[in-house]
Amino acid sequence: MYKTPSNNNELDHLINLLGKIPGLGPRSARRAALQLIKKKDSLMRPLANALSSVAENVHPCSVCGNLDVENPCHICENPKRDRSIICVIEDVADLWALERGGSFKGLYHVIGGTLSALDGIGPDDLNIRSLIERATSPELNEIIIATNATVDGQTTAHYITEQLKHLDITVSRLAHGVPIGGELDYLDDGTLTTALNSRRPF
Amino acid sequence: MYKTPSNNNELDHLINLLGKIPGLGPRSARRAALQLIKKKDSLMRPLANALSSVAENVHPCSVCGNLDVENPCHICENPKRDRSIICVIEDVADLWALERGGSFKGLYHVIGGTLSALDGIGPDDLNIRSLIERATSPELNEIIIATNATVDGQTTAHYITEQLKHLDITVSRLAHGVPIGGELDYLDDGTLTTALNSRRPF
Repeated sequence: MYKTPSNNNELDHLINLLGKIPGLGPRSARRAALQLIKKKDSLMRPLANALSSVAENVHPCSVCGNLDVENPCHICENPKRDRSIICVIEDVADLWALERGGSFKGLYHVIGGTLSALDGIGPDDLNIRSLIERATSPELNEIIIATNATVDGQTTAHYITEQLKHLDITVSRLAHGVPIGGELDYLDDGTLTTALNSRRPF
Repeated sequence: MYKTPSNNNELDHLINLLGKIPGLGPRSARRAALQLIKKKDSLMRPLANALSSVAENVHPCSVCGNLDVENPCHICENPKRDRSIICVIEDVADLWALERGGSFKGLYHVIGGTLSALDGIGPDDLNIRSLIERATSPELNEIIIATNATVDGQTTAHYITEQLKHLDITVSRLAHGVPIGGELDYLDDGTLTTALNSRRPF
């Protein structure tokens, strides 16, 4: 807990809270606080209002877990989205990444993390039960599991696949391989082996 | 200006404001926003309140420029501080650094930056006029100029010294030399030359 030498409790409190934002440490929180005070009207007050407003109005979608001011979210409600395919991701940041890509036109399901024995995160801590419920919908054909290519992400993908096995739907995963623009020389052996084994005809 | 793929204006607005905090870029602002939403009650709402409260209550001291909820600030008002000596610093962060050191018992004067021809900052943009007024006080004996040892900081120090020349007070500056714990081999030539020229008897 940082204390300014001025014994200014309000300022101390602000600096400590700023230091909890990922990306800001105690030193940069102090710098940020001073900068915010210099820009009271252009940054500090608008930021306070934006934080309150998002805290009040933005909620996870009860269907897919996306963050939105509406519930269900605008992706779930959009009649142009393909309701026969659901993409399963770990986090809202992954949903944003896929939406930036712009090529996926189906629905999403945010499970909210990965299974992790070390951190004590089991299936009931993630939104997996609601995914299995959605998977029974008759209009659904395919579930793409797009968890991260980490050990925990892959474990979670395997667990979900296992849970969906008895249903009559395709369960797929993202392709692994050489990233576009990537150089073979700099790739790790695992990726290179996977890319070779998953080779496709020209 | 970053836009979340969800066309969520409130969230976009928050991410853009977070990205203006020094230390956070567009990518980390997005990460910070998601983290804040996850910790709505423990971090997001308290941070919004702390920002509003500091914006309302913390102001620069009208005498020295320190930030405090009181005006004049608690350093200017403290009867134990030595009123015969004023230390001139660029910024409140420098004041905090000196207070952490704990060996200076006089008063401060925050000028709020440095003269800079490139950035178009002249003497009237800094709190130099109020320093010269304070310097005429009969109880004052010495002014220590503790601007940073940068080109702009030294230019500002010279300008202030020039303005105080006609008054009957000592004007001093911080010593330059080898930092405590510093190794000669890693020091730049300028510091080493200064340390040699300013050598003192054991």
